Amino acid sequence: MAREGGGNILPLSNCKVEFLDKCDGNKVWIILQDNKEISGNLRAHDENFNMIIDNVREFENQKNVGQRESILLSGQKILMVIPGSEPNYSE
Amino acid sequence: MAREGGGNILPLSNCKVEFLDKCDGNKVWIILQDNKEISGNLRAHDENFNMIIDNVREFENQKNVGQRESILLSGQKILMVIPGSEPNYSE
Amino acid sequence: MAREGGGNILPLSNCKVEFLDKCDGNKVWIILQDNKEISGNLRAHDENFNMIIDNVREFENQKNVGQRESILLSGQKILMVIPGSEPNYSE
Amino acid sequence: MAREGGGNILPLSNCKVEFLDKCDGNKVWIILQDNKEISGNLRAHDENFNMIIDNVREFENQKNVGQRESILLSGQKILMVIPGSEPNYSE
Amino acid sequence: MAREGGGNILPLSNCKVEFLDKCDGNKVWIILQDNKEISGNLRAHDENFNMIIDNVREFENQKNVGQRESILLSGQKILMVIPGSEPNYSE
Amino acid sequence: MAREGGGNILPLSNCKVEFLDKCDGNKVWIILQDNKEISGNLRAHDENFNMIIDNVREFENQKNVGQRESILLSGQKILMVIPGSEPNYSE
Repeated sequence: MAREGGGNILPLSNCKVEFLDKCDGNKVWIILQDNKEISGNLRAHDENFNMIIDNVREFENQKNVGQRESILLSGQKILMVIPGSEPNYSE
Repeated sequence: MAREGGGNILPLSNCKVEFLDKCDGNKVWIILQDNKEISGNLRAHDENFNMIIDNVREFENQKNVGQRESILLSGQKILMVIPGSEPNYSE
Repeated sequence: MAREGGGNILPLSNCKVEFLDKCDGNKVWIILQDNKEISGNLRAHDENFNMIIDNVREFENQKNVGQRESILLSGQKILMVIPGSEPNYSE
Repeated sequence: MAREGGGNILPLSNCKVEFLDKCDGNKVWIILQDNKEISGNLRAHDENFNMIIDNVREFENQKNVGQRESILLSGQKILMVIPGSEPNYSE
Repeated sequence: MAREGGGNILPLSNCKVEFLDKCDGNKVWIILQDNKEISGNLRAHDENFNMIIDNVREFENQKNVGQRESILLSGQKILMVIPGSEPNYSE
Repeated sequence: MAREGGGNILPLSNCKVEFLDKCDGNKVWIILQDNKEISGNLRAHDENFNMIIDNVREFENQKNVGQRESILLSGQKILMVIPGSEPNYSE
């Protein structure tokens, strides 16, 4: 599973933009603290992980607990971002 | 629900201002940590999510627990902002 | 309760100073995390919500748990600030 | 208890230095999160509330749980600072 | 176990880059809060500990709870980074 | 226990470097949140309390729960640093 032999570790700044840009249809899946998750379409973001997300679905403990049209998500509570993906929890 | 084909991901800086400006009657609904929520009218904000809010209603676990005329809300505890909207929990 | 028709959303920087300056007798009521609250007289503050407060009363779960002459309150743990007001919990 | 009539609210920057300088014998009492407290002699500090403290006593739930000669205290976990004072919990 | 006699303490900036670059095959093991851990291959990072990681395995309480192709990990929730290593918990 | 008569309070910037440099054999003992502790040899640090530490021992509730050769410790979760010292918990 490891890329043995490794390679160069790139500075994140370019990488992060490219990483988020390649989201399929801008889909993004965001893991927050306390077993909360958000999925939706990424409209905009800044370097502090703040994001505007459309077509939002909210999850708690892997259960869908709500939908929202658009939100401004604070980057401070984000644990990780998974681009081009969405949860496939049964609803 | 996904905007297949996607589009460009915009830098947040312009987007965020526009996003908050289009609030209907400046209504704003803010989700904090620990199942706390705030709704009211957004009078002012800065880039760190600090906000002055008027006609404030506070919620805990989706129950209204108080009203306040005006508050200065620290951006540090904000999870997400939903513009032009307010909770419709029965009170 | 909403100011229908809305207005302009102001940048916070001017607003925040004015907001705190108009405190009645400099009274300030601060909501912290974990059901802690502080009330007192605001002597000084900076843009990070750090504050020097005099005649301090501390509350936990809406009960007065102590008084202090003067404190330097870190802005990092502040949830919201209510100017010109103080808790009226029975003591 | 309130200074009715109030006064001017000062910018914190000068105030904070003066506030910490007037500590009696540099005594300082620091309230952290989770019912932890530190008392000791303030040797140095910066604008982020980081501090070097000598003759340190640590408290949890108002009980002395240890002493240390000198520590470097991170400002990030500090709730408030009480200058010129120390806990008088029975030990 | 201690390097008695010690040496110089270096500024972190150069050291950190070198430290992360020497990861064997870019393997990296990251300890987060709340007994969460991440392992994978480090593709990029910035000075705020934000990282893009490939071939990700997630752990909770030392149990593998999932795999992901690639993530953007926020630096804000990271407790520590162990380069060139991975958990050997039985799965 | 207090240095009555006190003295001047120094700015932290010089003090902090000197403070960490005088670690005996670079030994350092770090208290984190949630009753976690780290001890080891300080190889490098920056002004945000980020540190590279060698010969690491980890503790939880004063029990040794692991060793690691080298780690990059995020400064964000650090409560306090005790230089030139290490835990003497029975193992």
